[in-house]
Amino acid sequence: MTSPTLWDKILSSEKIILGEELKNYSRSTGFSEALPLAVLRPTSVSEVQQIVEVANQNQILVYPISRGQNWGYGDACAPSAGQVILDLRNMNRIIEVNEELGYVVLEPGVTQAQLWEHLKEKNISLWMDSTGAGPGASLVGNIADRGFGHTKYGDHFINTCGMEVVLASGKILNTGFGHYKNSRAKYVYRYGVGPILDGLFSQSNFGIITRVGIWLMPRPESFSAFFFLAPQDHDLEKIIEVLSPLKRQGILQSAVHIANDLRTLSGKMSYPWERANGEVPLPTKLRENLRKELGIGAWNGCGSITGTPAMVKAIEKEIKRALKNYHPIFLNDKKLKWAQALSKILKKLNIGLSLASKIEVVGPVFEMLKGVPVSEPLRGASWRVRKIDEGKLDHPLEQGAGLVWVSPILPMTGKDARELTDILKPIYNKYGFDFLATFTLLTERSMCCVTNISFDKKRPEEVENAKICYKELVKNMMDAGFIPYRTGPGGFDSLSEGSEVFWDTVSQIKTALDPQGIISPGRYQPKKNNFT
Amino acid sequence: MTSPTLWDKILSSEKIILGEELKNYSRSTGFSEALPLAVLRPTSVSEVQQIVEVANQNQILVYPISRGQNWGYGDACAPSAGQVILDLRNMNRIIEVNEELGYVVLEPGVTQAQLWEHLKEKNISLWMDSTGAGPGASLVGNIADRGFGHTKYGDHFINTCGMEVVLASGKILNTGFGHYKNSRAKYVYRYGVGPILDGLFSQSNFGIITRVGIWLMPRPESFSAFFFLAPQDHDLEKIIEVLSPLKRQGILQSAVHIANDLRTLSGKMSYPWERANGEVPLPTKLRENLRKELGIGAWNGCGSITGTPAMVKAIEKEIKRALKNYHPIFLNDKKLKWAQALSKILKKLNIGLSLASKIEVVGPVFEMLKGVPVSEPLRGASWRVRKIDEGKLDHPLEQGAGLVWVSPILPMTGKDARELTDILKPIYNKYGFDFLATFTLLTERSMCCVTNISFDKKRPEEVENAKICYKELVKNMMDAGFIPYRTGPGGFDSLSEGSEVFWDTVSQIKTALDPQGIISPGRYQPKKNNFT
Repeated sequence: MTSPTLWDKILSSEKIILGEELKNYSRSTGFSEALPLAVLRPTSVSEVQQIVEVANQNQILVYPISRGQNWGYGDACAPSAGQVILDLRNMNRIIEVNEELGYVVLEPGVTQAQLWEHLKEKNISLWMDSTGAGPGASLVGNIADRGFGHTKYGDHFINTCGMEVVLASGKILNTGFGHYKNSRAKYVYRYGVGPILDGLFSQSNFGIITRVGIWLMPRPESFSAFFFLAPQDHDLEKIIEVLSPLKRQGILQSAVHIANDLRTLSGKMSYPWERANGEVPLPTKLRENLRKELGIGAWNGCGSITGTPAMVKAIEKEIKRALKNYHPIFLNDKKLKWAQALSKILKKLNIGLSLASKIEVVGPVFEMLKGVPVSEPLRGASWRVRKIDEGKLDHPLEQGAGLVWVSPILPMTGKDARELTDILKPIYNKYGFDFLATFTLLTERSMCCVTNISFDKKRPEEVENAKICYKELVKNMMDAGFIPYRTGPGGFDSLSEGSEVFWDTVSQIKTALDPQGIISPGRYQPKKNNFT
Repeated sequence: MTSPTLWDKILSSEKIILGEELKNYSRSTGFSEALPLAVLRPTSVSEVQQIVEVANQNQILVYPISRGQNWGYGDACAPSAGQVILDLRNMNRIIEVNEELGYVVLEPGVTQAQLWEHLKEKNISLWMDSTGAGPGASLVGNIADRGFGHTKYGDHFINTCGMEVVLASGKILNTGFGHYKNSRAKYVYRYGVGPILDGLFSQSNFGIITRVGIWLMPRPESFSAFFFLAPQDHDLEKIIEVLSPLKRQGILQSAVHIANDLRTLSGKMSYPWERANGEVPLPTKLRENLRKELGIGAWNGCGSITGTPAMVKAIEKEIKRALKNYHPIFLNDKKLKWAQALSKILKKLNIGLSLASKIEVVGPVFEMLKGVPVSEPLRGASWRVRKIDEGKLDHPLEQGAGLVWVSPILPMTGKDARELTDILKPIYNKYGFDFLATFTLLTERSMCCVTNISFDKKRPEEVENAKICYKELVKNMMDAGFIPYRTGPGGFDSLSEGSEVFWDTVSQIKTALDPQGIISPGRYQPKKNNFT
């Protein structure tokens, strides 16, 4: 069906991957593995257009990926076998940087590290936002999946402006004002005129994003990161109740992440198999000891403040008052350097190890609060792997890590947080999994609760348990009204549960734009609405 | 084609308007007038669904309006004759108010005044945002048209969450998470999961919005309005250059409106026909005198600050520094009351009249900066009417006012503002019209330049001039890359100028969702993509 000669006509041979290397694209940290027919690595929009045309003529299914590091939400792997993967890694140009108005224009292959280094090298006074997917992850890919990071620009989708999309027809669509010649506001005003189409190309399979404008924030005059911790599990509600009004009042502008002890541990160490005597989930007593040793709380929060020095001071005061029971500390670059120096001394002297460890934990988080891409959070993906390869901590697939996210959205109230926790935690534990959880105060009114099943892919029985556990988690939380903000292949089908008109409308639009259903079949396409 | 009996089956007689009253729906402040076949006033979603079903069966065109006060962008009038107007004024329930999370859920008939009074009466500590369309204008209608107001929540579309839409199929679509049973985050998280459809139902004709969640801001602990003025026309660039970075740094959070002298005058008085000896546009010398008499500048700006007292103080300091050449003054409720008392005394003593007048001008603007709907801005619509009826200043149609907006978006730079002004102003003047202009710092990177042709509909030659002037304005600005953010029936056709794929895609979606093209044919549907 997809004879090499079909692609040879439009792509030079080094852009066509066949044979053994395809296996790298069949792997996933999730439940399904799917071997592609071929992998194509176009280097220009025109090549993408030609591929889509050929695919349409020959009814070949194409599955675009940016860098394939959509960890735990599908990775580089198509939802079903036999698709041709369009690997856009070599379309990695930073096309424009506008320092005055604060935006960049990127291709899908540009990684978090690449943009960060570019801004640093050229001394451009703009800050980006990073996710925990690591330095090698694509920015555009994360936008298409509507991921989020840590800064004031944490909501990635809302900070994009002006998409270039290759449609199934092979034509190029420019959203916003981008389809008007000479349009000046292409990358500064999102809506354009007429219906807004941008939303159609996120979490969908309606087209292939080949270029996008991303807003960056000006380097702030003053920056302060804050950290806090709460000793008890039930402090969660109280923390959310005090921070929630601050978000709506515009006092707290950055995303705020509140991680439980397990999530925090997983960024720092692997599952302590020996100390736990192989028992799962993590025994309570050991968990308490680890908290003490590492100086972490039941809940551990962080966020940041930017503005003029006087604004930052005024806001620090409010946050200090709100979090007075939870030991808030405020750090800027200068203070952190002092603390890090102190930590080294403490370690040498073999005293204050919990404090030293606390400072070490804080380092990478501090960087992320400034939008710097770091690889530490990726370590968490391998939490439950028995034999960790310390040299490959940033590559979950190489570790054989099992990772599937369960990440519902909830109103920003303590009550909702507790109710959700009470649903999820027992299910995780019932199947022997740890309840690794982060509540992110994402918008002014909503939070995302990011949890994940962490398992060892080399243990078939654990994989089976994870599958059952996943279904039970999703069903129970959705029944209670907690819907995921994002999902991977394992979760697509459940999305149409109890809903009809919405997904029928989505299907109608898909049919209108891609009548043969050649782009990413299955992606965000619940089965009963499937076309293939 | 639309026999009364068709509607009698589904609507009681008082909901069906025929005969003389139809003329009220044929009028427009713009160029076209279009007599509808009938006007229907459903009171429930189920009635809207039935109407759409009947319309589909009988190929009747339906044109939904909320309150019909879309002044200068189409008013209550369909783009072409023979449509059945769906007047949703009686679907005017405030369905939910969530004071804790800061949102309301409204039907399309709810007016700005109605919501404001509701919040006031029930002492709900939330602030709304209002446009200048007057107390009787619909909030939902303005959202569908992507209008904007004056506060931090000035971008109306971005502050909506969760739409209920009746599709051409008669089915009800809930966007975001709203299509899931018991969904808790329906009105607090916009995106839902899967493609985002909300944008499709703004500036389009894809469905009929029957309900929407609107975010409101918590009443701020501290509020400060600021006003500034610049004596010279060329101060415009400098003002924009100093404010633009403050927007991106998050220091200036509200919309900032910068109105020229003519715009400011038009909110306060009618065209001084006598003093101008009938001459148009307004003679330079008279213009200068009026500025002095009313104490206004060539450019007159306003915005607001909200937060804790310390934050407001810190931000005031920054704005004061940025605008030091433009006499910024800061007002809160207390200061304004003092000023108003002072103004009365000055007037009695017949001294400081310019100052007194300045304070009077400020009053309604101060209210708008707090989101209060006021009727004063509507006066501007009748600027060029010869015989003003002072009793009907809030009803442009009754005045015979000619009003057509020309409102392009531009990057937030002084250079762009000047270039745009240099294009528009000579064209306005060439046809004898005044260049009434407001630059609104709308987002962190873009401005909207709201200008309008103000003419007297009772003067056929002025109407003809306005038509030619309008086309020339739109063509010239679009050629230069300044695209309107919104338009009325006179401008729909020009939207496809120089653009193909975008409007073809819009057409494909329209056909998918409304195969017979029965909903609002022509609305945001450039002719070459028309279906009827």
